[in-house]
Amino acid sequence: MHTPDETHDPALRSWVESANGHANFPIQNLPFGVFERDGRRSGGVAIGDQIVDLSAVTVGGVLSSLAADAARLGSGPVLNPLLAAGRAPARELRQQLSVALAVDAPEQVREQLRAALVPQADVTLVRPVAIGAFTDFLSSYDHTRRMGNGTMPPAFAHLPIAYNSRATSVVVSGTAIRRPNGQIALDGTPAFQPEPMLDFELELGAFVAAGNAFGEPVDIAAANDMLFGYCLVNDWSARAIQFFEMQPLGPFLSKSFATTISPWIVTVDALAPFRAPLRRPDAIAGPPSHLSDADDLANGALEVRLEAAIRTGHGETVVTRTHARYNVWTFGQMLAHHTSNGCNLMPGDLLASGTISGPADENRACLAELTERGTVPIRIAGDEERTFLNDGDEVVFRAHAERDGYVTIGFGECRGTVLPALT
Amino acid sequence: MHTPDETHDPALRSWVESANGHANFPIQNLPFGVFERDGRRSGGVAIGDQIVDLSAVTVGGVLSSLAADAARLGSGPVLNPLLAAGRAPARELRQQLSVALAVDAPEQVREQLRAALVPQADVTLVRPVAIGAFTDFLSSYDHTRRMGNGTMPPAFAHLPIAYNSRATSVVVSGTAIRRPNGQIALDGTPAFQPEPMLDFELELGAFVAAGNAFGEPVDIAAANDMLFGYCLVNDWSARAIQFFEMQPLGPFLSKSFATTISPWIVTVDALAPFRAPLRRPDAIAGPPSHLSDADDLANGALEVRLEAAIRTGHGETVVTRTHARYNVWTFGQMLAHHTSNGCNLMPGDLLASGTISGPADENRACLAELTERGTVPIRIAGDEERTFLNDGDEVVFRAHAERDGYVTIGFGECRGTVLPALT
Repeated sequence: MHTPDETHDPALRSWVESANGHANFPIQNLPFGVFERDGRRSGGVAIGDQIVDLSAVTVGGVLSSLAADAARLGSGPVLNPLLAAGRAPARELRQQLSVALAVDAPEQVREQLRAALVPQADVTLVRPVAIGAFTDFLSSYDHTRRMGNGTMPPAFAHLPIAYNSRATSVVVSGTAIRRPNGQIALDGTPAFQPEPMLDFELELGAFVAAGNAFGEPVDIAAANDMLFGYCLVNDWSARAIQFFEMQPLGPFLSKSFATTISPWIVTVDALAPFRAPLRRPDAIAGPPSHLSDADDLANGALEVRLEAAIRTGHGETVVTRTHARYNVWTFGQMLAHHTSNGCNLMPGDLLASGTISGPADENRACLAELTERGTVPIRIAGDEERTFLNDGDEVVFRAHAERDGYVTIGFGECRGTVLPALT
Repeated sequence: MHTPDETHDPALRSWVESANGHANFPIQNLPFGVFERDGRRSGGVAIGDQIVDLSAVTVGGVLSSLAADAARLGSGPVLNPLLAAGRAPARELRQQLSVALAVDAPEQVREQLRAALVPQADVTLVRPVAIGAFTDFLSSYDHTRRMGNGTMPPAFAHLPIAYNSRATSVVVSGTAIRRPNGQIALDGTPAFQPEPMLDFELELGAFVAAGNAFGEPVDIAAANDMLFGYCLVNDWSARAIQFFEMQPLGPFLSKSFATTISPWIVTVDALAPFRAPLRRPDAIAGPPSHLSDADDLANGALEVRLEAAIRTGHGETVVTRTHARYNVWTFGQMLAHHTSNGCNLMPGDLLASGTISGPADENRACLAELTERGTVPIRIAGDEERTFLNDGDEVVFRAHAERDGYVTIGFGECRGTVLPALT
């Protein structure tokens, strides 16, 4: 199910020259996104610095009928129809594009596909999916431990703790993020004011493909096949608002002002070589039996390296280097847990991992951890200090799937610049 | 803005005979819903035991152009287009239907409207709105006090505490509710099993009309005008799942298995005579200034009496009698708070009040309160006892807006029967 195939062959090269050696989008990746040009939106597949316009390739005649179906479903202003069809059509399309974009493709095929290429520099990437629901999980042991000052929530080891977050305010990379106003009681007296402790959280997200019916749980053995692909998620967090509001119902306004996602969806199929066994620290119990599946436990984790940087007028400083294998729950487990009570998921629902922190100091994946809740500043370019984000700071996330013997593939960037609060 | 007008005249009677003296749907109400007949869905307006089919009335020619617009927007399978147009078109339609359904309407008008009438008994009422997001608040002081064993959350008096709940599993009255399975640790050892403490929560919900843009808060003075109307909400709760999962991110699977709403939306306009000043117990601070608006404080509360009953083979027992004025936050305050960080609401978003409990024992609006977390059983018909819900129990909510000098209007019923857990 997650076996590498000819599309992952490290020897594979593309006639789209920019793809060869590309840090994110070599021919071994082929992620899906949506772009806008001249006011029209269409789905596309990234290859090097180009995009295969799925609304143009459908008339090219180079695809099998299932792959052409996929291109048609992906040619609209959102990818939901493609996701709703499940993984098979998109997998077939990716396989055929891999063949058609390879250096040994016949000239006739190249010619037809060349006509469907659009330079990424000429378009605007937009939110690829109409996200009906966005659920954020808590899957890093070290993030949870640090945020709880060493105290672990009773359920942490037994289930992937989660909350419903806000889907309407999920925006695409590049959207400016307004610092929220909110009620804050740092000195004990609540006042409505600009958030002083604005933070990022470095996460991975997964999009649900076909969904499940109301009242019908998804077995853990079937859960991974319901995921379409992955993106980067910046779960912007207003810490002072959060600390005041979250008893007893959890975070609300501290998260719902904005969440940023990267524009490209790296498919489950592209990530097949980068699956790994789930690892958990000895300090916590193993997953419960209804969330334990042999294949998921052996292959449900992801070999994905992530970093977060803060960019100012003085340049960029990487402040976090971490790895998806620090998550103690797989996305399959998150999905199975989410539906275990009969809750129905829909195509395009976004599940996010929660902050991916690891045990080392450099693995701390939000400023609240990096600065010990604002008490220990970090140093960034230009000899400046930060405890939390300043207006004008840009936060940049990057991630790459890496493994010996395979070509590295990337997620592109997830960026957002902080605007001053409304007055 | 909320001034009673000729549509609330207690002397008004309808030529639809069943409306006169009707407990819920006299001519003074005229709520909106969606019904299904022969596989086709259409919006409608309840009058007595009949429905005015909005897809039939649009061609009747009895309406002004704005009201005809409203009827057209409300004639589809969901009311979202009508809500998205804001309150004005629906208000105009309600006013004109009030005239056209009154006993002194000309025979020609009656004839045209009679052709659009459908008996409620002949159709299925369905979920009236495609709900993109569902937010549940905590606005009863007494519910919060009892559930916290006397300890109030620090923010309770200062903001309407809330969480994002799950919109996809909001179902219409009459849908059977499957008892969820989940991880439970009542004796300290977590196990995946059927929920033993299945509960109801008696709430009111409000539907958002036109919504607001990303990054643009709604001022409290404008918040009430963004609400379209109200329904009953049963926020089914799996208490044992809830107690285990909710640290630190709040309730998740304990709520997301199902939420039931009543099928009719009682408009803000119909409720104009039933507005009242906001009251709060002396024990808590007043609302903060950014959530304080003179009109909202004077008229933002609702004169709505509510009851919850449990129905078994032995008959029905009313177990809760309460009142919407026990809420210490208005729906206007909830909406203004929700958007105060820039979060964008969409037409059809559902805001629910949280469990509407009051100070007296009979005002306890969920079983966890009524039975002191299952330690003190209540007695129901057939000499049976309940701590929490049994399989086969039906929960029935009813509510009526009442005030001296006005005709009482009702919300209809919100029902759901408990099915056994999946094995």
